[in-house]
Order: sequence, then structure tokens, then C-alpha cells
Amino acid sequence: MYNAALSKPLPIFHPMHALYLKPKEHHRIQKGHLWVFSNELANVPRDIAAGETVQLFTHDKKFMGTGFYNPHSLIAFRLLTRKDEQPDKDFFLKRFLEALKLREKTYSPEETNAYRLVHGESDGLPGLIVDRFNQAIVLQAFSAGMDVHLPLITGVLQELFKPEVIVVRNESILRELEGIPLYKDVVMGDRKATKQTIYDAGISYDVDVFEGQKTGFFLDQRENRRVIRKFAKDAEVLDVFTNDGGFALNALYGGAKSAILVDASQEALQRAEHNAKLNNFSEYSLVAADAFDMLEQMGEAKESFDLVILDPPSFTKSRKNLPGALKGYKRLNKLGMQLVKNGGFLATASCSHHVSEEDFLQTVHQAALAAGCQLRLIYKNSQPFDHPVLLSMPETSYLKFACFYLTR
Amino acid sequence: MYNAALSKPLPIFHPMHALYLKPKEHHRIQKGHLWVFSNELANVPRDIAAGETVQLFTHDKKFMGTGFYNPHSLIAFRLLTRKDEQPDKDFFLKRFLEALKLREKTYSPEETNAYRLVHGESDGLPGLIVDRFNQAIVLQAFSAGMDVHLPLITGVLQELFKPEVIVVRNESILRELEGIPLYKDVVMGDRKATKQTIYDAGISYDVDVFEGQKTGFFLDQRENRRVIRKFAKDAEVLDVFTNDGGFALNALYGGAKSAILVDASQEALQRAEHNAKLNNFSEYSLVAADAFDMLEQMGEAKESFDLVILDPPSFTKSRKNLPGALKGYKRLNKLGMQLVKNGGFLATASCSHHVSEEDFLQTVHQAALAAGCQLRLIYKNSQPFDHPVLLSMPETSYLKFACFYLTR
Repeated sequence: MYNAALSKPLPIFHPMHALYLKPKEHHRIQKGHLWVFSNELANVPRDIAAGETVQLFTHDKKFMGTGFYNPHSLIAFRLLTRKDEQPDKDFFLKRFLEALKLREKTYSPEETNAYRLVHGESDGLPGLIVDRFNQAIVLQAFSAGMDVHLPLITGVLQELFKPEVIVVRNESILRELEGIPLYKDVVMGDRKATKQTIYDAGISYDVDVFEGQKTGFFLDQRENRRVIRKFAKDAEVLDVFTNDGGFALNALYGGAKSAILVDASQEALQRAEHNAKLNNFSEYSLVAADAFDMLEQMGEAKESFDLVILDPPSFTKSRKNLPGALKGYKRLNKLGMQLVKNGGFLATASCSHHVSEEDFLQTVHQAALAAGCQLRLIYKNSQPFDHPVLLSMPETSYLKFACFYLTR
Repeated sequence: MYNAALSKPLPIFHPMHALYLKPKEHHRIQKGHLWVFSNELANVPRDIAAGETVQLFTHDKKFMGTGFYNPHSLIAFRLLTRKDEQPDKDFFLKRFLEALKLREKTYSPEETNAYRLVHGESDGLPGLIVDRFNQAIVLQAFSAGMDVHLPLITGVLQELFKPEVIVVRNESILRELEGIPLYKDVVMGDRKATKQTIYDAGISYDVDVFEGQKTGFFLDQRENRRVIRKFAKDAEVLDVFTNDGGFALNALYGGAKSAILVDASQEALQRAEHNAKLNNFSEYSLVAADAFDMLEQMGEAKESFDLVILDPPSFTKSRKNLPGALKGYKRLNKLGMQLVKNGGFLATASCSHHVSEEDFLQTVHQAALAAGCQLRLIYKNSQPFDHPVLLSMPETSYLKFACFYLTR
């Protein structure tokens, strides 16, 4: 009898390549870190392709886990799992469901229709970011391994969420460190669906996940934007580096008398204005200017505000530039607090990973001494529920936010 | 002509005593710290009474400010003001109004009728705590100087708030370090008014400011109690060291299926039960037990929960006992996380001032490694708006709170 099964080509047994750590280099991984740097490997095989799935072993051949390899990257290996499993459809589905459960527990549909579903390493998927904006899903891959798996990932997300569109925004220069190209693409669905309206705790924003900054909208300041509503009632507000207007709109929602939105980018101000109109706010004005120049001029003109918000972009991408970054934060915060009325509030943020919370707070303290005012720290926060941090991986933490009551 | 003014006794010019710092000891004070330790003074005069208001100068006679002196205390001087002013009625009124403005800006009357009005050093009033529970005001003085001024302070608060009762709870053993006696007293108003009902974001609590712990209720976990509502929907909750039931009640308010309230003190459990009934919750049970024993037994019995809350009392009052305290936190958190279901939540706190946030988080991380589970840090917080922190004075910071999403 003809046996169909036998007529199929036998599956080729394709054993995974093995990587070996140098002696003692397994400790950090054992304690929960997910990266192996190339200098921690006993050898860095050049015959394994970038993005290939490999197994990691200690120097004495104890199995550590499975992950993605890249011989061209300083981060030569990114751990996916400590189990003997493959990054297949089931694996990604399991990880997405685990990540989804956290978001569904912490954000209700009444509250928001936008969240970061996967925050890379923190959600057990090194090098992958997945943001969900209503019916659009946006992916970013930062490693060769994730890049190779994007079609599989897209398929799993499509099945799971049935979105109108899935967009890949692979434009980060971090990809150059992995030797992978920069591009963006609509990989599934309708190009027109890349424009979505999201809402967060009562405020709506129009988001363009194809043309907007990064993945279209900064979700990471969500809780912090809500917190400043507390200090905003009847306040005259200055929102510096306003971008899409998030902080200013929340201040207006909280009852602010007026808000001045400052940004160097005309495009950002247009988005902010669009969002202000979308929410029927009118008591705002837009200023296109360099933040430092603007703050200095306002200081000279003796202007003052009940609430000043400083949410600058990262001042440094490397540890090397830390002193320069701290100098920048000190100058910015000093200029900002000089504009806060006696008994007013300062809300200040740093998204530079290399600036620790302690460094940041100490820098704000130095600025207060230079500005001759007293600060009471009344709130500090790191990242929201959908941007979790791994205690084992300081690299997963970047956001610092602090609110102060200022007196003179 | 008779001159009435001349017939009055001339005001006695009572020059304030002067204290001098040793060389270089003014730097910390200049940067915003408010304490001078006895070994930082050029001399510690024994002829100035404990609690007297004195002026502080650098070694080369530059005026630093005015504050309270205590020759019997390690903290020999507490700075009240850097201006040339006296701690008189106007001074206290100004400080109270400044502190009140912060609370009124951050807590609305719809939200709560209880807050800490004065958090000691952080509100420019070293050694003084003032809590407001609806119509009752509770004072604590931790320095001889504040002790001397309690009648004045009581008078100012009475005028400002017209409360039904003002209670002094001077029972902290910290007072022994100042050489002042321990006592409690109703200093104004009606003894019956020491029982008040307070509310916080939808939950009511009966508070006894004369008989209750400390000043009657722990306000400092207010925001954190509200945050765990997020993770509580349909959850089976274990609230360890429940005290007045604050966390458990907020979990039930957030939709928890059930809550087990654990405390070693029967009195605490009675208060918790009273508050549960006050809010018409019924899905709770009370367990009087040592927390560690209880957690161990539950672990052996393979019990598990969707949300475990650990809010222990301080494990150490001194830096000397830090290693022991960290050991305690590690054991507690390991036991606690072993009871969290896969995909559940751990909320954990430390109110030991000598345990830094970094130490605390690292200890929780160690516990997770020992328990064999993965933690995603999704929230961390320090103190609420009414317990501000001075960046210049680490002594004003004590509370650490962190929430984790736990997987295995």
C-alpha cells in the first residue's frame, strides 16, 4: 500500500548552533539579564548568520537557554527562553497573551484603546516593540533575530487582534548597530487605517502610525499626564517640549485657565493644535521656539506660571555624554523653575536611560539651589504599567518623572 | 501730658543666643539640610535651655538662620528659617498656609477629608507633624523646641481650622532622645470628637485619633491603596499586615472576589472589620497570625492568590540593623511571591527609612530569584503629596512601594 506519509520528504533535523560563554560570564544571565555581549562569548562564530536562533551554554556546557544570535552586534546574543523551546508561532502567541493579560488587567477599555503590548526585554521578547493604537498595530524590531521573525510575528498578531492595519516602523538608528536596514512599511491591511483616534482617560488624540514620530504617539507619559491634572485647576500652564500636546491637554482637562505649548517643531505644534481642537479646548497658545531660548526670554520678561512642565527628548544616547546631559538638565530645570510662581508646581522628566533617577533628582536639586527656590518632592514615577521594568536589567528602565511644590 | 505709651514697661530686648558651626560644617545646611548635629557645633552651650530659639552662624560669623536648640539631643539644632524672623504666631500661620495650599491643590474635598497638613522638615517645620482627620487635628512634636511652642501652634490651628478637637499624641520614643516626656492629651475641644469618620476616594474609615495607632490612621499609603484597585478586579486577595484594612478595602472596592486580611493584632483586625462593615463589604475573612508563620503555612498548603499585598511595619529603626532588615524583607517577599498565581500581582512596601529604594528593589529581586519567578516592575512610588520629600534631606524620605506582575 502506498504510504503518503513516507512519500513526504523527511523533516531535516536541523540542530541549533551552540554558543559557549566564557567562565563566570553566566552569572548575570542566571540572575535574569537577557543579553550576552560578544566579549563574554568563548568564541563568536562567523559562520552563523545574523538573526539565527541558537542555544546558549555555560563554559562547562550547562544549557542556559535559547535566543537570537548576531555576530555583527555588540549584543551578540539575546535570550528568549530558558526552556528548551523554539521561537515558533506558539512561543510568540504565549508571550503575547502573557503581555496582553497585564495590559488588560491594568487598562480598561473605558479608560483607553491604546497601549504598548510588548516592551521588548521586559515582556520576554528582546528587541521587539509592539504598540496598539485602537485598530492599528505598530511593530519595531531592534535585533536581527526579531527582524527575521517579523512575518511570523505579524501573522500571530493578526490572528490575535484582527487589526485593520499592521505597520512596521524599523527606522531606529539602533538597527544600524545590528547591521540591519532602516525602513517603514504597511505589512498588513489598509494604508488608510494608519490614522487612528485614540483616547486616554477622557482625552482624544489623532494618531498617524505611519507618518507620526516613532510609533505615532508617546504612551509612556500616560500616568504622569494624568497626575498633573491635580495641580492644574485654575492654573496658568507652560508646557515645554509639548510634542503632541499631551501634558497641556491634560492640564486643560484638569481645569487650567490657560496653557502655552512650546515646541521647536512646527509639525509637532500642528499635531498639538489639532488635538486641542479635537477635545474642544480653546484656552491655549502655541509657540514655535527653542525651549532654552524661550525660557530665558520669559525669565527676562518676568513671566510666571502656576505650573511649568518640562518633558525634553533624551539629552544623551550614551554614557560618555552623561556630564553634558546633566548640565543640560540643570540649565533647563533652573530656567523652568525661575518661571514658577511662589506656591506653584514644577513637573519635570528625563527619558535618558543613562541618567539615573538619583542623578536626575540631584541635578534638579542643584538647579533649585542655583535658582534660589525650595522644592518639595510630591510625586515621582518611572514607567507606566505597559512599559514594565526588569529589576535584573537596568537597560529596561529609562523614564524619570518628578513633581515639585515650589516656594521661595 | 501723661503719656500712656511711656507708662508701659519697655519691652525687654531679649537677644537670641548664638550658636557657631565648626569650619566647613555650614555646607550641608547651605544646601538645604535643616539639622545640625552636636559634633558640628563649635561649642554646645549647656546654659541655653532645651527648646530655646537660637541663631545659627558659620564659624566666621555669617548668619545662617534661626531655629530650635537642644543641648541634650544629638540633633542639637533644627533650622526653622533662613530669614531674620522669630517662630511667632505669624511665622507658624505662614507655614501652615503654605502647607495647606499644597494639600488643597492636590486633594479635593470630594476626594478626601483627611490629610497630613505638616510633614515636619518637609514643610519647613522641623519636628512637627500635623494630621487632619475631618474635624479633628492631631499634633506630634519630636523636638524640645516644638514642644515648647505647642500652645502657640494649637492656637494658630484653632483659629485657622476651627476644628472640633485638637489632640496631642506625644508618645513617640524619639522624644526620649530629646529628653522630653511621653504623653497624650486633648488640648482643645471635645473629647468625644476624637472619633471621626474619614473618607478617601470612595471608602470610609472610622478613626480614633486618641486611642488609635500613631495619630489614628496611616495616610501615607493613600495613593498606593488606590493603585492596587487596578489589579484587584475579580481577584482573590491576600493582604498581609492589614492594620486598618486599607489595602484590602481598596481591593474589594476595585472588584476583588475575596480578601483575606492578616494581622498579628486582634485590635487591628477589629478596626479592619469595622471599616469593612462600614463600607458594606462582605467578601472578606480575618486571620490573626504572625505574618511569616501564616505565609509559610499557606505555602505548604499550596494556596495561591491573584494579588498579594505586603505592607509590614518598619523592620529597623537604625542603620546598624540594615542587614537584618534586608534579610527580613527578602524572606517576607519570597514567602509572599510564592503565593502569587502565574500572571498575578505582588504589591510590596517598606517604610524603613534606612532601607533605600535601591536596596529594597534589589532585595525583592533576590527574593524572586530564590522563589524562581519572574517579576515585571509595573509601578513604584514613594510618598504621597501630603508627605513631601526634601531632596536636600534624605531623612524626609522613608516609604517605598512597588507593584509587580509575576510569571513563572
